[in-house]
Amino acid sequence: MTWLALDIGGANLKAADGLGFALARPFALWRRPEQLAAQLRQFIGEAPPASRIAVTMTGELADCYPTKAEGVRSILEALDEAAAGRRLAVYRVDGRFVPPDEARQQPLRAAASNWRALAAFANRFAAAWPALLLDLGSTTADVIPLDPHGPCTAAQTDVDRLLSGELVYTGVERTPVAAVVRTLPFRGRPCPVAAEFFATAADAYLLLGDLPAAPADCDTADGQPRTLPAAHARMARMFCGDAELVSRQEAITAAAAVRDAQLSLLESALRQVAARLAGTPRTVIISGHGEFLLRRLLERTFPDAVVLSLKDELGAAVSRCASAHALAVLAREGFGKD
Amino acid sequence: MTWLALDIGGANLKAADGLGFALARPFALWRRPEQLAAQLRQFIGEAPPASRIAVTMTGELADCYPTKAEGVRSILEALDEAAAGRRLAVYRVDGRFVPPDEARQQPLRAAASNWRALAAFANRFAAAWPALLLDLGSTTADVIPLDPHGPCTAAQTDVDRLLSGELVYTGVERTPVAAVVRTLPFRGRPCPVAAEFFATAADAYLLLGDLPAAPADCDTADGQPRTLPAAHARMARMFCGDAELVSRQEAITAAAAVRDAQLSLLESALRQVAARLAGTPRTVIISGHGEFLLRRLLERTFPDAVVLSLKDELGAAVSRCASAHALAVLAREGFGKD
Repeated sequence: MTWLALDIGGANLKAADGLGFALARPFALWRRPEQLAAQLRQFIGEAPPASRIAVTMTGELADCYPTKAEGVRSILEALDEAAAGRRLAVYRVDGRFVPPDEARQQPLRAAASNWRALAAFANRFAAAWPALLLDLGSTTADVIPLDPHGPCTAAQTDVDRLLSGELVYTGVERTPVAAVVRTLPFRGRPCPVAAEFFATAADAYLLLGDLPAAPADCDTADGQPRTLPAAHARMARMFCGDAELVSRQEAITAAAAVRDAQLSLLESALRQVAARLAGTPRTVIISGHGEFLLRRLLERTFPDAVVLSLKDELGAAVSRCASAHALAVLAREGFGKD
Repeated sequence: MTWLALDIGGANLKAADGLGFALARPFALWRRPEQLAAQLRQFIGEAPPASRIAVTMTGELADCYPTKAEGVRSILEALDEAAAGRRLAVYRVDGRFVPPDEARQQPLRAAASNWRALAAFANRFAAAWPALLLDLGSTTADVIPLDPHGPCTAAQTDVDRLLSGELVYTGVERTPVAAVVRTLPFRGRPCPVAAEFFATAADAYLLLGDLPAAPADCDTADGQPRTLPAAHARMARMFCGDAELVSRQEAITAAAAVRDAQLSLLESALRQVAARLAGTPRTVIISGHGEFLLRRLLERTFPDAVVLSLKDELGAAVSRCASAHALAVLAREGFGKD
């Protein structure tokens, strides 16, 4: 029995086999939900042959679906079509794999379970507890408390997880700057920013040198390349300015303020979750695009914790698809040789 | 000599002749800058015949233009093509009309001058000074101090106007909820919201009954209609929820918090600008889509000021295009019979 695991998000599709294969691709589900089945079919075709498919999703929140229940059902339908007869196992927020029919009956249990798979898998890297998994991605972050038996969260659904601090809706790439700060420093004063999708967190980290330039990547706020001059122009627009009115150095100063605001958001959630642990976290497992920011966060919050990086453990490519990798490993182990 | 005035924004085109004709149409300039000339030509064709065209713009800030200077030049070029030989007069932030060639030489003076035209025109409705113009539109607000001679602002460019409080980048329709609040009340607690373009201020005011439903209008965050059930679903998504998980009443409670946050933003800018006046404002002229919110704002800030509504003075259709109307009036008066 061979497995392929899929993580179907609202902006990215990810796949992994748990043995080293990993594939991620941007797909704007909210714009083209009708193309999901075809995308998944192609995606499965590019992966090593697998007799079974495990699945987790967050795409049901995309605003192409009137409700999450309908989102889950639509995604399962697309998956069924793409799977071409392979058996499907849907991972739920309670940590169980269920057949699609059962997932359809309780769709909200199948919604947004990828954090659960990642945390259950990551826990094997912890040598001492209490522990935490911190995953910071392009759009959101997860702060998951771990004990020797696995994730021990206060909440399971997205809404409750926002309230508990276990889900933080901020990330190092897609997050709009206008959703992070009301003002940015400009010529020594706080300047209110434009309430527009003019720049994203990715521009801030590009300006700060934390994320690399990628001239071929135009998945940015203005559709221009992911380069320093373009990031400078985008950040300038947050002040209703441009690269002639706002200097590169002024854009970098603004970028640092965006980073600080994200660090504050994350710190507040981290402290909220850590307060429910039996003691100070002894191990913190970090993962996602934003590991660089999580290291800074931990330096100022829990400097004594042992920090383990999934990127170091799994390699960059697999760790980019860590939830899918985790799910494939869990599936293989859970189903054994049946 | 007959005039048509155009106000070329990043999301809307507006036209008026100053004599009662007014036309507004959504046009997503940032997505289709190459179609601007054709759109303007069609727009001019629908207006009463005019021998001259006056123009003001804010579209140069749209992220299809690398800099504002290039934006101004591109818009003037499109306009030149659409004007088909009619003489053009470009209004500047210093209150002067100039020919296109002169505007091209100092493009930043031609950028974002519509507030200036509106304020110069609105001042004639003030019976006592110090006075203020408060214009609250779909995306931004202007807070313009007036003395008997006209606008007496501390700033002229967008960047300086943000700093001075004279430009407030918040509006009653297009503003993303995630750019207004970090948290919204939910089940008695502040819940962090999704940093996504899931709902806008228009949804809040629709839920609160301040703006009417418009089932044919799908220019919303999710492309669904501007109706109560759809606004409810959009607001629920701010909590990573849906209309099944978040009740209508809970969505309305959230909407009230969005309104309160916008009122606070506006109040702070209003007090900042009013502090520079020679005394408490005696007349306040209000205009724009958001007059309903401005009335609330004034009740709690300057309850003794005489409030004049441009909607009452000009009628709803003309006031929807108040800057264009103002510009046409100023052009006719300024150029006399030459």
